[in-house]
Order: sequence, then C-alpha cells, then structure tokens
Amino acid sequence: MKITYDSVVVSTRIRLARNFVDFPFPNRFKDVSKAREMIHLIAAELSNADKFELYYMNAVSEERAAVLKERYLISQDLIENRRISAALVSKDESISVMINEEDHVREQYFLREFDLRKAYERISGIDDLIAESIPFAYDAELGYLTACPTNLGTGLRASVMLFLPALARRNLMREVIPELTRLGLTVRGAYGERSGAEGELFQLSNEVTLGMTEEDILSVVESAVQTMVEFELQERKAMCEEDGIGLRDRVCRAYGILTNCIKIDAREFMSRMADVKLGVALGVFHGDMRALDDLIIAMRPANINRLNGAVLDEAGRDVYRAEYAGKALRAMDLPNGEEDY
Amino acid sequence: MKITYDSVVVSTRIRLARNFVDFPFPNRFKDVSKAREMIHLIAAELSNADKFELYYMNAVSEERAAVLKERYLISQDLIENRRISAALVSKDESISVMINEEDHVREQYFLREFDLRKAYERISGIDDLIAESIPFAYDAELGYLTACPTNLGTGLRASVMLFLPALARRNLMREVIPELTRLGLTVRGAYGERSGAEGELFQLSNEVTLGMTEEDILSVVESAVQTMVEFELQERKAMCEEDGIGLRDRVCRAYGILTNCIKIDAREFMSRMADVKLGVALGVFHGDMRALDDLIIAMRPANINRLNGAVLDEAGRDVYRAEYAGKALRAMDLPNGEEDY
Repeated sequence: MKITYDSVVVSTRIRLARNFVDFPFPNRFKDVSKAREMIHLIAAELSNADKFELYYMNAVSEERAAVLKERYLISQDLIENRRISAALVSKDESISVMINEEDHVREQYFLREFDLRKAYERISGIDDLIAESIPFAYDAELGYLTACPTNLGTGLRASVMLFLPALARRNLMREVIPELTRLGLTVRGAYGERSGAEGELFQLSNEVTLGMTEEDILSVVESAVQTMVEFELQERKAMCEEDGIGLRDRVCRAYGILTNCIKIDAREFMSRMADVKLGVALGVFHGDMRALDDLIIAMRPANINRLNGAVLDEAGRDVYRAEYAGKALRAMDLPNGEEDY
Repeated sequence: MKITYDSVVVSTRIRLARNFVDFPFPNRFKDVSKAREMIHLIAAELSNADKFELYYMNAVSEERAAVLKERYLISQDLIENRRISAALVSKDESISVMINEEDHVREQYFLREFDLRKAYERISGIDDLIAESIPFAYDAELGYLTACPTNLGTGLRASVMLFLPALARRNLMREVIPELTRLGLTVRGAYGERSGAEGELFQLSNEVTLGMTEEDILSVVESAVQTMVEFELQERKAMCEEDGIGLRDRVCRAYGILTNCIKIDAREFMSRMADVKLGVALGVFHGDMRALDDLIIAMRPANINRLNGAVLDEAGRDVYRAEYAGKALRAMDLPNGEEDY
C-alpha cells in the first residue's frame, strides 16, 4: 500500500483583504462611476503582471457567475454586489482579485499543492502592485483596515483544502475540530460556511488575523495541516488493516459505477469520486489526484451547463455527468495492472 | 429495443416418476443389496443409450452432492436416501435418472430452450429403456403407481424455468399465481418449494398428473408459458416506456459492479446478474443469456468450492465469486458497441 502526502492536501489558498483610502467600504459604496474607476485602476496595474480576464459582475450572466463560483474564483457576496463589483482572474485561474466584495479587494492565490509560503509570496507580489494603483487604508496599530473587524490586521486568510475520507468515515472530525478551534483555526466544508463536507473535502483556515504576524499565521496553519495529514494517513492505514478487502471492494465498486452508470446525481457523484480518490491514495488505482479533483469541479451544475453549451435541467445534468465523467475516467485508465486479473 | 422469446424461458424440464413391480417403495425399501441390484440393472440398460456417470449416493461426498443439487441434477431427498440411492447423469447433463428418491426412478430431461415436446420425446426414449430392465408398476385405471398419490397416473411433471424480472419487480406475480392455480399449475422459486424467487427465476409446472393424458399436460403447460411470456414481454416494454433511462442505468450499474467488485455475496450476485440478463434482453448489452445462466449456476456455493478445488468459507467464496464472475463477464464483452462512447 502506497500513501502519499499529496493524497490529503488538495490545494492551498492565500487571501488578502484590502481597502483603499478615500473610498467608503463596499456596503456603503453607491457611486457606480467611482467603482468603475477603481476597477480600471486595478485592472490597468495588474495587466503589467499577468494576463487577466476582467469580469464586471453586472455584465456577467447568472450562469457564468455560477461557473466562476463553482471554480472557487468568486464568492456569492461578489455576485450580490454586482452593481459595483468585478473580478480579475488570471488565465491559469491561480490568481483571483475580487473588487468590491465585502472589502474593496480580496486577492487570492491558489496552488494545487501544499505550499503556503509560495502562495503567500505570489499574492504579495500582486498586493504590492495593487497598492500602487490606490493607497491601502492602513493603521499603524490595527494594520489593514477591513469592513468586518474579524479581518483587521493582516487581512490574511490561509486556507488548505484537505481530503479526509478516513477521518470523516471514522467520525473523527468532531474530535479534531475543538483542537483546531483552540488554535484559532476553523474547518469548513469545501464550499464555504454553509456547505456540508461533500466529497470528504474540508477547508482548514485561520480565524484570527489581528495580533499575529503573517509569518505566525502561516506557521500555525502549516503545522495544523501537518498534524491533520498525519492523523488522516494513520487512520487510512487503520482502515486498511481492519477491513482491507471491504475498502478495496468499495473503491472498485465506485469506479465500476462511475464508468458504467447512465445517470448520477451530484451528491452520489461526489461520494463515488471520493471513493475513487481514496483508491488512488491507497494504490488500488494508478492515477493523478489533481485530474480527479478537476473532474469533480467540472461536474458541478453550472460547469456542466457550460460544457454542454446550454442549460440542462437536473435530470439532464445527471445523464450528462454520467456520460462525461464515465468517459473521462475510462480515459484515465485507473485500474492498477496488478489487480487486472 | 430488442425483445426475444429466449429472454424469458431459461429451460424446460420433463420428469417421469416410475416404480418397479416386486420392489417396496423407497421409503420402505431397506435391502441395500436389492437396491444395488436395481441400480446395476438400470445402469446396464442405459449404457446402451448414452454415456452416463453413475453416482452411488453413499459414495458421494457431501460437497459433490451439493454441486449436483445446485446443477438441478439431483434432489435433497435423493441425498437423504443415500443408503439405497443413486443417480445416472448423462455427460452433457441433459438427462438425470435418480434411483430410489421418493420413487424407484425419477427420469428427467433438461433442455435449455422452450420445447416441452422435444424434452418429452427424449425422456420417453429413456423411459422405454428402463422399462426393459425391470417392469414398471402400472394399473390400467390409475396409470403409473407412485409413492405419493399426487404423482399417480402419468407420473409426468412438465416444468419450465422462467426469467420474469418485469412481473417480479412490478409485483404482478400475485395476480398471476391464482390464475395458474386454477389451471392446475404451480409456480415456485428456482430452487424448489421452499426457495424464494432468487434471480427473478420462477419454475412453472403442472400439479395434476392423474386424469389427464401426457398430451393434455404438455398442452396446458405450454399455453400457460406462452401467456406468461407475453405478459412478461409486455411489462418489460412498459418498464422501458415509463423509465427507460432509469432501467438502463440500473442494468449498466449492475454490470459495472459485477466487473469491478472485490467481493459479492450470493444474494447480491443473483440480483445483479438478473439486471445484466435484463440488459441483454433489452438490447442494452450484446450477450448470450444461456452463458449468463451458466455463470449463475457456476457461482453457487458448492460449485464455487469445486471450481476452487477446496472448500472456502463464505467470505472466501464472496471474493472468489467477484473475481471469477468479473473475469467471465469481461470476457463476454457485453457492452453494446452503440453505447460505448
């Protein structure tokens, strides 16, 4: 049995919350032309750094907005603020700058591996550029000023998306969560505060942004992730020892269903894909975990509608999902040679 | 959608019950050497007709007996009468003559298609031969004398094994059964009176053997089977019309599970195989229904032990079944070309 570190950490995200001097916070910001001006200044500055796609949220269709949201590039708040909001998204989708979400800017950097420092470095470069467009509101004592006091100080949120099938199935998350809370950290389902832990994905991030340096925050999150990864790997091992055949049966059945079904709903799909990912993690399958994560995102409702080129109803999406994902998984050729009797 | 007649009738069986003059009925027959003599006489006579395997039941292991029983070649009563009982089974397993079961001889002919007359003709040839070994007890008024009065007269039982997934799933068997009873017919699960309808297999046969000619019995059973087949095909069509995608999804998932699982118990296996057979019947898969029926029999517990060459416990059989059946199904290459996107 092969267990890799990569089989637990799905992605790393660093987010900085910033506000400009001389502009009211977005919730009090009614002047559309001033908002446009802000957007132009930021976009112009960023165009020096990388290729960005600029989305004025009032010009983006509901469907397109849903696609961006499913891809973790924008938030519901940004969509709701559409009169004044915009998003700048880099071509490779690693950088997303939301303008006039809760704060004037929310700068995010995504990495599909576990490297908080690299992500922080990258987003700091973007942050420096944006600061050149308009000066940030900064207080020597409080640090960066934010619309919500919970983001005051560094304005930094370091998040790591974790795939924790063993902890979830063995009902161990409720033991872990109080420990993390004590460290000033929170755990949420993959799709934000209100979502359950679909696909056994959990987002670990710092709660506190004030009274700690950026370095402190990164260190605390980093070491919590390391502990979680070790705990998860240990519990995966225990699962294999307790009922290896049962586990192998479950992941192979999930693969069999995904590659043969004619329709599959979003919830079942997430659950079967979690099994297949666990199969890759345990060496039952050959495969690229990131390709499986991509497929999970591609099969969310708005992303399916986009792939299909027209909006489907739920039943239509279930059939599309079965066909598309089945084909994608067969092309990945996951079954392990040794197992192919 | 393709629907064939063969997709309902699994097999035809004709059984004749006979007893010899000058021998007590088996339940009162204690003389082992007389029984041996009877067995020898019959075996010698039959060796003129075909290649038969002779099993003295007291010399057959429990495991071997279970294999024969699972293959419908012998009965539990024959096993229990082992002191005096034997079976003669033709090489192709189409003919089985049980000696000293409930009656002195129970002659059976199996056909893997729907042809009662052909089966009756074939077993009549065997019957004539056996009558030459020792004369049958026959009464001009009562016909052939049997240990149990329910078999008096023709001693003929005509049985047809039917695969009735649509009637079973749509809960229509309870409507059919009273009709059949009125015609003097019975319906049982595939494995005899006490078994449920595993694999959606039902055995239709005549109850009455007295006061009707052989021809009458064959005609009644034949026409009942025709009615059942039409009813089943009509209900399959209705199932497709009501939820074709759901049905296709179910049969494809069954195939996916069977070709990928690591363990599968007897009950689930029967149910998934019934789905795959229905898939063949509906044209979702290419395939040979009889090969699938063979696989069902081969995967019964004693048959698995025999294939394995050593007795396995239940958990071991579940793993063996998954591996063997998965391999067999993959080799059959069932998925329909049109469906393989």
